[in-house]
Amino acid sequence: MGTPLDDAGLDTIFRTARTFNGYTDQPVTEADIRKIYDLLKMGPTSANQQPARFVWCTSDAAKEKLAQCASGTNPDKIRQAPASVVIGMDENFHEELPWLFPHTDAKSWFTGDADKRKEHAFRNSSLQGAYFIIAARAIGLDTGPMSGFDPEQVNAAFFGDEPNVKVNFISTLGHGDPETIFDRSPRPEFEKFNRIV
Amino acid sequence: MGTPLDDAGLDTIFRTARTFNGYTDQPVTEADIRKIYDLLKMGPTSANQQPARFVWCTSDAAKEKLAQCASGTNPDKIRQAPASVVIGMDENFHEELPWLFPHTDAKSWFTGDADKRKEHAFRNSSLQGAYFIIAARAIGLDTGPMSGFDPEQVNAAFFGDEPNVKVNFISTLGHGDPETIFDRSPRPEFEKFNRIV
Repeated sequence: MGTPLDDAGLDTIFRTARTFNGYTDQPVTEADIRKIYDLLKMGPTSANQQPARFVWCTSDAAKEKLAQCASGTNPDKIRQAPASVVIGMDENFHEELPWLFPHTDAKSWFTGDADKRKEHAFRNSSLQGAYFIIAARAIGLDTGPMSGFDPEQVNAAFFGDEPNVKVNFISTLGHGDPETIFDRSPRPEFEKFNRIV
Repeated sequence: MGTPLDDAGLDTIFRTARTFNGYTDQPVTEADIRKIYDLLKMGPTSANQQPARFVWCTSDAAKEKLAQCASGTNPDKIRQAPASVVIGMDENFHEELPWLFPHTDAKSWFTGDADKRKEHAFRNSSLQGAYFIIAARAIGLDTGPMSGFDPEQVNAAFFGDEPNVKVNFISTLGHGDPETIFDRSPRPEFEKFNRIV
């Protein structure tokens, strides 16, 4: 077990952290992006699958390409954010298991079972998407995760030469501007969605 | 943005944290469980869906019931851990949206579209499963997430009277015993699964 986080740490990753609609002008650097990945990749996935594939959009051209796949108010959020990321999932992640999970033949658990691979890729890349959100917060950045986009368009635009990779969700990234958020939506009491048995 | 975590904090939630196969005798209290939920529920989900439903197994009877649904070496891990949790997902989460996301009619986005609800429940309860793992670490506890179990058996045993709730994954919970872990599996270099465009 590690040292428990203090109140400031718990605030940073969960309690006072918010998702943002807009950001300050402060840039997101390549060093920031590498720091986020170096943290999030340590988060656990089943049999160390790590199916998430990240495309970090920092150029105006890449942001515009992603914006054109998004719906509602999301295109403008993407255009205005210093960076956005496409969190994809490799449905052929099992091809990497011989080196990612070297102590047993985990690849064979998934060979020939595309439905099982889809399920595991979706679950575990979602876990990694959550690690991305927390890792960004942990180094002082903020995110704006979104599922309002056309997945076929995103796949064609960003994974056109990798048909085994599909978008899971997308997110903006930057230093959040508190002016751009609304009141926090309600959080349930423990009893609502929990049982101790 | 929050205060960035210091090195000890980054170690606790990502860098030196590990998943565990076994635990010390130190118990997991109801206060621990409530602390974990009070943190994890602050993590973002799409339209504040919060589809995860948690069943915390702390009694011998509940642990045995869960152990009998698990495969491989997992039953013994569950029996020996101070606690385990079933992370379920409510595929009718949209019924709760009028109070969880009160400022618009988000329920109508999902009414009559069971496939869309399944996808959103799976993605967002997986995010919440990751928040559970990180929240447990943040208060000094450890987890052992598992997907080696029979989902139909778990659904029947724990959600028999809620057919709209399905298990996503399960996990042990406790104070990790370092004797029970193996060497960490490899983590990729940035270039392997990332592009900056």
